[in-house]
Amino acid sequence: MATHSTPRFAAVDWGTSSFRIWLVDARGQILAERRSAEGMTVARETGFRKILDGHLAAMQAPQDLGVVICGMAGARQGWVEAGYLDCPAPLDALAARAIRVGHETRDIRILPGVAQRDADHPDVIRGEETQLLGLAHGEGALTVVMPGTHSKWVRLEGTTLAGFATHMTGEIFQALTSATLLKHAVEGATGRRDHAAFRAGVRETFAAPAGWSSRLFEVRGRQLLFGADADAARDRISGILIGAEIAAGLAQGAGGSPLRILASGRLADLYIEAFELLGIAFAVEDADRATLAGLTFAAGRIWP
Amino acid sequence: MATHSTPRFAAVDWGTSSFRIWLVDARGQILAERRSAEGMTVARETGFRKILDGHLAAMQAPQDLGVVICGMAGARQGWVEAGYLDCPAPLDALAARAIRVGHETRDIRILPGVAQRDADHPDVIRGEETQLLGLAHGEGALTVVMPGTHSKWVRLEGTTLAGFATHMTGEIFQALTSATLLKHAVEGATGRRDHAAFRAGVRETFAAPAGWSSRLFEVRGRQLLFGADADAARDRISGILIGAEIAAGLAQGAGGSPLRILASGRLADLYIEAFELLGIAFAVEDADRATLAGLTFAAGRIWP
Repeated sequence: MATHSTPRFAAVDWGTSSFRIWLVDARGQILAERRSAEGMTVARETGFRKILDGHLAAMQAPQDLGVVICGMAGARQGWVEAGYLDCPAPLDALAARAIRVGHETRDIRILPGVAQRDADHPDVIRGEETQLLGLAHGEGALTVVMPGTHSKWVRLEGTTLAGFATHMTGEIFQALTSATLLKHAVEGATGRRDHAAFRAGVRETFAAPAGWSSRLFEVRGRQLLFGADADAARDRISGILIGAEIAAGLAQGAGGSPLRILASGRLADLYIEAFELLGIAFAVEDADRATLAGLTFAAGRIWP
Repeated sequence: MATHSTPRFAAVDWGTSSFRIWLVDARGQILAERRSAEGMTVARETGFRKILDGHLAAMQAPQDLGVVICGMAGARQGWVEAGYLDCPAPLDALAARAIRVGHETRDIRILPGVAQRDADHPDVIRGEETQLLGLAHGEGALTVVMPGTHSKWVRLEGTTLAGFATHMTGEIFQALTSATLLKHAVEGATGRRDHAAFRAGVRETFAAPAGWSSRLFEVRGRQLLFGADADAARDRISGILIGAEIAAGLAQGAGGSPLRILASGRLADLYIEAFELLGIAFAVEDADRATLAGLTFAAGRIWP
């Protein structure tokens, strides 16, 4: 990265299990970037401030450089609770509602999350709202699918976050393959993709979503009775859960507006494969880029 | 228990995490009974034979008393693999297909499980087939719901096990409340039943089963935004999973025949509450009694 330019601010994406920081110049160019596994879980032990100051020092950031943060650092169990904007939430108000963290030399702000205070569907977002702020789009309605530990399906209306639902897809995949008999089914998996098994899983739960739990047990039955291997089992479980998530998203009304997948890496590949298989039209945007764009937009509002 | 009568055989229900043994006389009366946590998981370490011999000695069973066993002792990872009857499986053939375990003084038999060798719905049962054998019923078709770690929904036609599906309801409940963020939601639960929360959970996934995963995340949202307590969270998760299981069972064709719930204790209470709430007609039978009746029937065939 070029370092001849002067940083204008530092941007931080502080998740549950990951920490990322960028130094950004006045033109929005990245001057330096660091990543670590010091997410909220680690930071609760080590100290949020110590981790942040350490990375800023390692990047030789000026003592008075402003820092804008999104994600779990603002959770109740995080650094300083940053509260929530209520749904429908105008995303360009995130910066104005940021919480300031006490520090001798720096101006540090944590952006709030978004709460859906609906007694039937109470839900919260923290981190993804900043990605959505960074998502370039027009004035119309849009459904944004954000795969992850907790996948979010969001209805955007222009720059307003109108409503959302969280599917525990990633976390349930982890729990199933580590804390149930399905851990035996994936034992010895090499990571080789088994596209046929993945697609069969997607198709079967998309067509009959109620059956997800018995489809999961059949993964083990298929090994005992037909000798399916661990990679097939792993990809089939993944397909079963993603197929169920897509069925739920559409059942909850996502079909009415253009669909955007906001993801990176392996997760993007899986969701793209599933949506293509099901013949559902979508466009893809890079999640990493959206996060930085959202933090940059917020920084521009805080330090105009 | 009366011990003045002579035992005719010993009956053992050897599950994954539990062991039960009864001494039964020629009239089918229980002379003695013992339970322990020495299920297959423990027995793989301690030794199946040592556990069985220990309990028989403690009950002063004759050296040559025959023993009939059902359950995971017959699994591939159990004592001696007892194989499977194929679906449609005539349950009165279980005894004839029992495996004999080598022992100097005793005749020990392990009953086989039942396999559904359907490439689309491969599934296995081990233990429940013996309960079904013990279930008194007529010649017609019957749907039997067997709640548990792995709930079984079985189609019986007379004494033939025609087909079945396994829902991982109990195990998924455990995994969710111990290995996902929902463990925070149930922290401090006292065990007090929250019927309103349970019923709301049943209703919402029964009406829209695709939404199970977002309904689960809302349990946490409801705490953060509306202050729901840990008992409400626990019972709502339970209701969400049981509602989804019932929706799946009916979607998979269980609605066409009379419905029997085969359960005991707390699980029986939960399923009865759910079926009543949904206005689905059913009858209840005691699972413990059915197990012993099935083992007794098999013993009568083995030692006529």
